[in-house]
Amino acid sequence: MADKSEKTKARLPRGFADRSADDIRAVEKMMVTIRSVYELYGFEPADQPLIEYTDALGKFLPDQDRPNEGVFSFQDDDEQWLSLRYDLTAPTARFVAENYERLPKPYRSYRSGWVFRNEKPGPGRFRQFMQFDADTIGTPGVAADAEMAMMMADVMEALGIKRGDYVIRVNNRKVLDGVLEAIGLGGDDNAGRRLTVLRAIDKLDKLGREGVRLLLGPGRWDGGKEGEGDFAKGAGLNNAQAEAVLLATSKSDQNSQADQDVNANAVYQEGVGELSTIEALVRAAGYGEDRIAMDRSVVRGLEYYTGPVFEAELLAEIPNEDGQIVRFGSVGGGGRYDGLVSRFRGEPVPATGFSIGVSRLMTALKNLGKLGASDVVAPVVVLVMDKDTESLGRYQKMVAELRAAGIRSEMYLGGAGMKAQLKYADRRGCPVAVIQGGDERAKGELQIKDLIEGARMSAEITDNAEWRAARPAQVTVAESELVAEVRKILAAQAEERAK
Amino acid sequence: MADKSEKTKARLPRGFADRSADDIRAVEKMMVTIRSVYELYGFEPADQPLIEYTDALGKFLPDQDRPNEGVFSFQDDDEQWLSLRYDLTAPTARFVAENYERLPKPYRSYRSGWVFRNEKPGPGRFRQFMQFDADTIGTPGVAADAEMAMMMADVMEALGIKRGDYVIRVNNRKVLDGVLEAIGLGGDDNAGRRLTVLRAIDKLDKLGREGVRLLLGPGRWDGGKEGEGDFAKGAGLNNAQAEAVLLATSKSDQNSQADQDVNANAVYQEGVGELSTIEALVRAAGYGEDRIAMDRSVVRGLEYYTGPVFEAELLAEIPNEDGQIVRFGSVGGGGRYDGLVSRFRGEPVPATGFSIGVSRLMTALKNLGKLGASDVVAPVVVLVMDKDTESLGRYQKMVAELRAAGIRSEMYLGGAGMKAQLKYADRRGCPVAVIQGGDERAKGELQIKDLIEGARMSAEITDNAEWRAARPAQVTVAESELVAEVRKILAAQAEERAK
Repeated sequence: MADKSEKTKARLPRGFADRSADDIRAVEKMMVTIRSVYELYGFEPADQPLIEYTDALGKFLPDQDRPNEGVFSFQDDDEQWLSLRYDLTAPTARFVAENYERLPKPYRSYRSGWVFRNEKPGPGRFRQFMQFDADTIGTPGVAADAEMAMMMADVMEALGIKRGDYVIRVNNRKVLDGVLEAIGLGGDDNAGRRLTVLRAIDKLDKLGREGVRLLLGPGRWDGGKEGEGDFAKGAGLNNAQAEAVLLATSKSDQNSQADQDVNANAVYQEGVGELSTIEALVRAAGYGEDRIAMDRSVVRGLEYYTGPVFEAELLAEIPNEDGQIVRFGSVGGGGRYDGLVSRFRGEPVPATGFSIGVSRLMTALKNLGKLGASDVVAPVVVLVMDKDTESLGRYQKMVAELRAAGIRSEMYLGGAGMKAQLKYADRRGCPVAVIQGGDERAKGELQIKDLIEGARMSAEITDNAEWRAARPAQVTVAESELVAEVRKILAAQAEERAK
Repeated sequence: MADKSEKTKARLPRGFADRSADDIRAVEKMMVTIRSVYELYGFEPADQPLIEYTDALGKFLPDQDRPNEGVFSFQDDDEQWLSLRYDLTAPTARFVAENYERLPKPYRSYRSGWVFRNEKPGPGRFRQFMQFDADTIGTPGVAADAEMAMMMADVMEALGIKRGDYVIRVNNRKVLDGVLEAIGLGGDDNAGRRLTVLRAIDKLDKLGREGVRLLLGPGRWDGGKEGEGDFAKGAGLNNAQAEAVLLATSKSDQNSQADQDVNANAVYQEGVGELSTIEALVRAAGYGEDRIAMDRSVVRGLEYYTGPVFEAELLAEIPNEDGQIVRFGSVGGGGRYDGLVSRFRGEPVPATGFSIGVSRLMTALKNLGKLGASDVVAPVVVLVMDKDTESLGRYQKMVAELRAAGIRSEMYLGGAGMKAQLKYADRRGCPVAVIQGGDERAKGELQIKDLIEGARMSAEITDNAEWRAARPAQVTVAESELVAEVRKILAAQAEERAK
């Protein structure tokens, strides 16, 4: 039972959020659209639990050394470590590895769900958020990667984002890997420095070329000037090395200036070759540069990518929370992760996938005006004039009749009087109120108020006497006319809204 | 990167499960139906995160003394305890308490999502499962409880469960509470014994009257006989007390035999009175005894219920996993929980709600044959005869054309030959395969195979020579006819399926 001696504080842990009815409905609509595109491409729904063995998730989060850093973990009763998934890719890899024999290959699947990051929350940074992924597992061919890029372009347009307002950028990790090898950063010993380079490049948009140059070299102060903010240690490249990296990751996909060592590197050449294959495939299928662009500056921050990487970017300039007009940026991304399934199976199982950040994309669509007001109409409310069981039964019957006719409706369930009931109807945005007091009951009648029209008229009529005389937007009908009359009013309101 | 020296084992922790595409689609369909009924009743969607402060969840799980028993818990970086929610009611209570001022009252909301129990898993017992709840918060009137019962009856029928195949049973905790008070088990000192009585009654279906009588009295051996299995300590009631409890919880709602002390008890009378109000309300709205039955044997195992309790039971006899025909039993339940929100606010916030066990209900619908085969058609597959980039681009273009026409389709993405590709198409259940080799290409043609008709014909034709001669269900058309021809075949297949 409730502990009455001490009040528990009702509060949410930092980084978690309740969702509003409007947001839930908007996300639902958006997910139906995304799903329909994934289905059109022949992908099948899949779903893994939210909890996995920590070791099955691997240590693939950026900026972590210990397995539990960044993830929520706890021990099972047999002392084994469990974690909440931090993305949908790691559980997918586990599932496919476990069921490889019985799955069609390549295995095309999609999945959506909550993922968790045990990180410091901030504005717009949550510790629980939703992703919606698609993956093709079991094929090394970059035709699968090309398809991912096209599917993402189709998702954007299905969501109502106009051509020119988004672009899917494609690059290949092998290009950067080849450059790093050519400048002497190959081999296991340099894995840490390569990761630092990767994350520096991933910040090109935020920090610009000069900021990234510092991160590639000696390091950089967060605040932008020496001594301001925290110091981020750099990758320690010399000027020539940093220049080679910046050159290989410049927006242009003409890499004619790449130096001889880089050009001679086999991994680099493989990357460049795969990129032109992807480009040829998407162009053949009719996707122009305005939809899918080759862009050497895309690297993605995650360590596990092994080949092509993609990013869906919204180009539209949208007001942010502070009212500033900004380019919205990335709403999803992905790439080839040939190592993730393989590590369970000890044989190559190449894979590629894409992940959409659902909440972020919803925010973007909202700001773009692509998520109009919900088209769900609030319920008709049957007000409660008399509270004896017999009267309540009559009101309940009215509601049952309305519902049987498919009309969303409810009986007022609170204990308050007429004024509070109308306030409730207003707060809910109810379109119609049904009223039956003793007088009406005696005559077998009821009153039906058009609350939308009523509000409009009361805004026009300022004189109280005039208002009373008009008794606006209210009709008295026989009990048997309830459904027909309510239906008529709702239809008139829908027509008005459509104007 | 993947650790190549040691293979990670791909396995799921006990009590967690991956879901199949069919199950996901079936659940999705079912949830859309449930949601439409909740919406029809004027409820609004709501959503709380999966993680809450442990103290906000309270200690409301059955059979636990410590807060963390039964729930997955972990400490945040500020040392505060967090837990995964074990139901949707406790987070709802926290949310409403936190936002009480700004919510319309009564607040009608619904929510679905995963909940977690850190318990020993077993067959059909999972540690992660899905619930779909509706709650009305802020009204003490049992009209809200009556509505819950009616809504659940409507949900059952909306899901295709025939009248007579289900029943919503309604009781009131106050009836039992009154009896316990009358036989001297009132007061805080007896809280533990009252809980033991509650859980004993909740096992009436499983153990029968005599089994429960033992649990009310001295205790009971799990195996049914002395010394067999574990011993469950009883509530220690004497014969007369146990008889009074069994009488008050017998199926019949005629309680004329209740003794004088019980009849004189105010809480008991309040419970009986509320039950007849609920009965009058649901009957007035047209819900007969075949849909909503008053049943004194329903108590629900959860400690936090304070008034009316309900249970949705499937009466249909369904084959279970072992092929035995059994009455399926409970697929959901709920009740009034006036203490849950109040404990945050220090003022009364009465509430009532209902929870559907989604996976359990889906299993029932499957066994009842109410979830037919998925109506999603597998994708058309464009086979890959030539693997050069130019050819791949052409196949890709065909797929893009099909998709632009709204036809679910994919290009085969694997590396394997013709035989493996047809095997893949078979495994996926693809309805149509599109083939273009060099010869067809030269003539601007392609072959389209009707794989469904092909399979049917090959089942009929046993002679291999005859088979080759017939070249069943395959046409050669001009490239420009691709979409029209595929559409024609799919339409013919749909017509065949509908027969």
